[in-house]
Amino acid sequence: MSSREFARGRRVVARLPYGGDLLAEIVAVAAEHRMVMAELRAIGALQRARLSFYDQGTHEYEEFSVDEPVELVSLLGTVSRRDGAPAVHAHAALAGHHGGCVGGHVAPGCVVFACELILQELVGESLERAHDEQTGLPLWRDL
Amino acid sequence: MSSREFARGRRVVARLPYGGDLLAEIVAVAAEHRMVMAELRAIGALQRARLSFYDQGTHEYEEFSVDEPVELVSLLGTVSRRDGAPAVHAHAALAGHHGGCVGGHVAPGCVVFACELILQELVGESLERAHDEQTGLPLWRDL
Amino acid sequence: MSSREFARGRRVVARLPYGGDLLAEIVAVAAEHRMVMAELRAIGALQRARLSFYDQGTHEYEEFSVDEPVELVSLLGTVSRRDGAPAVHAHAALAGHHGGCVGGHVAPGCVVFACELILQELVGESLERAHDEQTGLPLWRDL
Repeated sequence: MSSREFARGRRVVARLPYGGDLLAEIVAVAAEHRMVMAELRAIGALQRARLSFYDQGTHEYEEFSVDEPVELVSLLGTVSRRDGAPAVHAHAALAGHHGGCVGGHVAPGCVVFACELILQELVGESLERAHDEQTGLPLWRDL
Repeated sequence: MSSREFARGRRVVARLPYGGDLLAEIVAVAAEHRMVMAELRAIGALQRARLSFYDQGTHEYEEFSVDEPVELVSLLGTVSRRDGAPAVHAHAALAGHHGGCVGGHVAPGCVVFACELILQELVGESLERAHDEQTGLPLWRDL
Repeated sequence: MSSREFARGRRVVARLPYGGDLLAEIVAVAAEHRMVMAELRAIGALQRARLSFYDQGTHEYEEFSVDEPVELVSLLGTVSRRDGAPAVHAHAALAGHHGGCVGGHVAPGCVVFACELILQELVGESLERAHDEQTGLPLWRDL
C-alpha cells in the first residue's frame, strides 16, 4: 500500500508578490490559510531562477542558476511536512527568449516577477517526509 | 493579503475540435458551461503554435511562431475576466520530433490537432484583470 | 457538444515504487482505489524514459528513448477506458543535467526512480477511447 485517499479541502488562488522568493511565498500562502497539506500549480514569470538536478548515483543535488528573466511555464508540486515544518516540493519548466526550456527541482533563489498560484488543500493525516535509504531523497514515509 | 479562497465548482472534461484556435476553444467551453472563473489543464497536439515571451525590461511581449506539428506537453492556466470579458491566461510546453521543447505564454494562433481539456470551476467573487504598473501585465487587481 | 460535466470524486496521493514502470504503476493505483476515470498529475524522477511524438501526417507514433536519469518536471493526463480496460494518457516534460528538457507522449518503458502522483477521480459515465478517423488517435468517442 503506497497510496492514500484525502478529503477535498479549500481552494486558494494567490498572486505572489514581485521580488519574493518562490518557495518562501508558497509556504506563506499555505500558512496564511492554515493549510498543512496541499497540491500546488502555478504559472507566471521569474526574474531569475535556481533549479537542481538530482544525481541518482551520488545522491546529491546539482544546483544551477538561470540568470535571466524567464517564463514560468509550469510549476507542479505539493506542500507537506518535513522535520515538523511545512515543505514545498515543486518542479518547474522555464522558458527564455524564443521559448528555449530548462527544467528541474525548484531551489531557493527563484525570484518572482509575477506568479498566479493555486493551492488545493488535502485534508487528512499529514504526510511527513523522511530520508529514504534507497533513493537518498526525503520521501513521504507514511506511504 | 494577496490570496483568496474559492468554493469548488463543477468539473468539465472537453475534447477540443480539430482545427480550432486553442484559446478561443477554451473560452467556448467555459461559456457553454457558464463558468466565469476556472482553472485549466490540458494535453494534446497542435498543428502549429504561437507563443510569447514577456520582456520584463521593456514590458512588451515578443511573439514567435512554431511552424510545425508539436505535442502539447502541458497547458496550465486560468479563465478569469478582463475588460468585462472572459480571458484565458495559459502557459504551454510543446515538444517536437525527438522531444525538443519550447515553451511560453499562449497567444492566439495555436491550432488544435487534438486536445483533452479539464476545466475546474472556481466559485466566488470573480477575479478581474487590470493593468499592473510594476510589471506592465494584466494581473488580478482584486488580489 | 464536445464536453461533459463530471462530479468530483476522491483524491488519492501515491508514491510510486522504485523501479516500476510509470504507466503500469498509475494503472495499479487507479485499480487499487477502483477509480474508472481520473485526472492525474505527478512530479519525480525517472531512471530512464521512453517518449513518443505523433506524426500528424503519417498517423504514426515515433518512439524515442531517454537513456539516462532525468527529473520528471511535469506529468499531466487522465485515466479513462480503451477496449474495456483502463488506459492512461499522459504527457511528460523531463529534464537532465543543467535542465535541458525533452517532452512528449509517455510510452511504456519509463522507469520510476521516485514519483509523487495525485489522482483526482472523475465520477460520471465513463469516457471510452476509440479510433478517430481524422487524427488517427484513440480519442474519447463519447465527446
